Amino acid sequence: MNLLDSILEKIRPSEEDQRKLAEVVRILLERAKQVCGEEGIGKPMLVGSAARGTWLKGEKDIDIFLLFPETLPKEQLEEIGLKICRKIAGGAGKERYAEHPYVSFEFQGFEVDLVPCYEISDPRKIKSAVDRSPHHQAYVSQRLTPTLKDQVLLLKQFTKGLGVYGAELKIHGFSGYLCELLILHGGGFLDLLKQASRWKPGHVIDLERHYSNEDEPRRIFENQPLIVIDPVDPGRNVAASVSLQAFATFVRGCQDFLANPREEFFFPKETKKLKKSELAKILRRRGTEVYCIVFKSPDLVPDVLYPQLRKTERALTTALNEAGHKVIRSDVWGEGTCAILLEVQPCTEKVEIREGPPLGVDAENFIRSYLLSPLRLAGPFINPSGRVVYELESRRPDPEKVIRETLKEKHLLGKHVGETLQKGYKLIKTHKIPELLDNPHLSPFLCDYFTKCLPWYR
Amino acid sequence: MNLLDSILEKIRPSEEDQRKLAEVVRILLERAKQVCGEEGIGKPMLVGSAARGTWLKGEKDIDIFLLFPETLPKEQLEEIGLKICRKIAGGAGKERYAEHPYVSFEFQGFEVDLVPCYEISDPRKIKSAVDRSPHHQAYVSQRLTPTLKDQVLLLKQFTKGLGVYGAELKIHGFSGYLCELLILHGGGFLDLLKQASRWKPGHVIDLERHYSNEDEPRRIFENQPLIVIDPVDPGRNVAASVSLQAFATFVRGCQDFLANPREEFFFPKETKKLKKSELAKILRRRGTEVYCIVFKSPDLVPDVLYPQLRKTERALTTALNEAGHKVIRSDVWGEGTCAILLEVQPCTEKVEIREGPPLGVDAENFIRSYLLSPLRLAGPFINPSGRVVYELESRRPDPEKVIRETLKEKHLLGKHVGETLQKGYKLIKTHKIPELLDNPHLSPFLCDYFTKCLPWYR
Repeated sequence: MNLLDSILEKIRPSEEDQRKLAEVVRILLERAKQVCGEEGIGKPMLVGSAARGTWLKGEKDIDIFLLFPETLPKEQLEEIGLKICRKIAGGAGKERYAEHPYVSFEFQGFEVDLVPCYEISDPRKIKSAVDRSPHHQAYVSQRLTPTLKDQVLLLKQFTKGLGVYGAELKIHGFSGYLCELLILHGGGFLDLLKQASRWKPGHVIDLERHYSNEDEPRRIFENQPLIVIDPVDPGRNVAASVSLQAFATFVRGCQDFLANPREEFFFPKETKKLKKSELAKILRRRGTEVYCIVFKSPDLVPDVLYPQLRKTERALTTALNEAGHKVIRSDVWGEGTCAILLEVQPCTEKVEIREGPPLGVDAENFIRSYLLSPLRLAGPFINPSGRVVYELESRRPDPEKVIRETLKEKHLLGKHVGETLQKGYKLIKTHKIPELLDNPHLSPFLCDYFTKCLPWYR
Repeated sequence: MNLLDSILEKIRPSEEDQRKLAEVVRILLERAKQVCGEEGIGKPMLVGSAARGTWLKGEKDIDIFLLFPETLPKEQLEEIGLKICRKIAGGAGKERYAEHPYVSFEFQGFEVDLVPCYEISDPRKIKSAVDRSPHHQAYVSQRLTPTLKDQVLLLKQFTKGLGVYGAELKIHGFSGYLCELLILHGGGFLDLLKQASRWKPGHVIDLERHYSNEDEPRRIFENQPLIVIDPVDPGRNVAASVSLQAFATFVRGCQDFLANPREEFFFPKETKKLKKSELAKILRRRGTEVYCIVFKSPDLVPDVLYPQLRKTERALTTALNEAGHKVIRSDVWGEGTCAILLEVQPCTEKVEIREGPPLGVDAENFIRSYLLSPLRLAGPFINPSGRVVYELESRRPDPEKVIRETLKEKHLLGKHVGETLQKGYKLIKTHKIPELLDNPHLSPFLCDYFTKCLPWYR
């Protein structure tokens, strides 16, 4: 397919790019070896897409792992590991924390991560997720031919275009390693897409046939839409990060691409940049009540921040729905500025139908609880489905009040986000929303929200 | 229980009542015998509650069946049967039609029904439902002791008070024969209520153990909430007329009566008579849009009229719901004047969430159908449940327009009701509804609708 060749031209790193990377990697590994030698412990190893030749042009990530003997106690690993990392990184190094601490720094235009881990021969006995990376490195690099590497590049760019590339908790999508395994499984980009276009939630891929059937992994990884057994560790689903939304988006994308292959799937049009007047018009047309909670971003990596933002978002939508307001959509943003956007369908209904339990379940309490209520409009009576029903005057507290009250309940919110919110936030309402476009951090978020569309249909 | 004795005092016919009935029955049977003798065919038989001593004080129904040999062809049965009935009734007789034609007339303050039927020895071989009545007569009268007759009276009055007495298609409730069988089954009024308070939909009563288990009748009479096998015909459910609503009302009534036995269950307070200003206030408080279609009653017995009114009601609620309006309750009336009342929850929502099929079902058509729609606000996108979604501008045609258009579609409406509606109707809207209280036929209907409540909670 000509299209795929022309895409490859754009995404495959040039010889110059590769030479540059090789040179930088050489310098880094040398420096790492030297430091490890000085400390008398540690074995540097290049892993990730840079090591396997599956990096997309323009990607600037270099992952160097430092392998330590598994006899080293955890505290010592962290201590000596970080010390070595800091020495390698020099003054530019920043300590970060995922499951383990690690150090990242910029070097000659590249983003370098230095990650201490254990060298464990049997990957089923690893002590931490990072210990698995050297095994992934070995598994993939032994199997990926140059042709397959190109196919990985296509799949990575394709998921990127679809908006589902990255296992981060912001995206809940497909990791680079997952893309590599999918290509090994499918045999090529188009073949994989053909298979994926027929996937249903609960699809199992087990390259090394660790399981004799699909039922067992499906039971172990229950409710995970895509189950890709890690070849080096049958107890792990490489696609655990893939949400149902990302899964369905990918399957939809495969179906649509095969029906009508276009470059836009790989390089979608940008979201339309809305002017204030345009957003105001959209808001009028939607006729909804929009609430945007804006607050200073706590200093957290996205993988920690986003789950907290989502938790806070869930607490708010639950509270609004329970108060009788219909939240039709909501979203969060955590880059530069934090924002939680809630869109409520306005409701003027004054009668609330309150149904009791079905026949056979005790309804006494239900009947008693509204018999003398000042809100009772009619009932108790039996509806055609045989249930006891009251019609009550509905009393909906103001959404703004519900939001403000919920944001006081720290235990319902994410830890750091909750703490930050206690210090203050702005609650922006419908007609003031367009003014948020002045905030360069929030502008893309709002434009995306109000023109929400699969990228290839933009 | 003292309460039941005092109820019995009120509902048991006096000796004077009984003497009067016996006298009238004697005259009628004598006259019937004479006419049958003159025609050389037919055998009169008193059936129903008057025959079994299970009539409530104040009930004025006398059912006399005329039994003909089963060799008589159907047309001749109808011809000679009606001729004999007319002769018995004299000038006062009115021909009626149920499954069979019959004649009814007033005689000395009683409502007399004369019904020709076949005399068939095996009730499983009957040709028409009316042929079963003589068998019911025999079955019940052989088993009901005087004490049990009183218990039947209590049960009939109880179901009357609950608003579920009568197998008519207006009520969908409990027939007199069903009440008799329930007492035979339960052994007494209170015992039956104790049992019934634990009934769940699909309850089976099989007095003569025609079936070896409950599964078979439950399969045969699928979805019927109460299944009482006719002792004289295992292929018939005596409670076929009982709707889920009536069933649940009865069970609820039994539970509530046993918890707190009061006379109000047998003789409930009347529905409050609303003044116009009161109804106007209720309408304002409910905040709903009420539409009442008022038209001249076609000349039909309630058992023919009500199903047609219900069919028309269903067509209207379906059309309104499909047009995006939420019908929260509706009801029909067919006495004196016909009325169909529809209550719509007003809706100001401007965004309609349109969900596509779940993953695995082809969504191509769904996506294509709104991609270029001028109503598109956002989408297609994938929601967290993995479904393709569009947000569309909702366009709701005016409810009045929906109603008027639906009433033109004769095939959706009941036959006679549809024809009558083509000749004209009035469509009364919310603020004009109180004026309908001036119509003495509609006043009880409206008062009942807007103060809807189980009778014993009034």
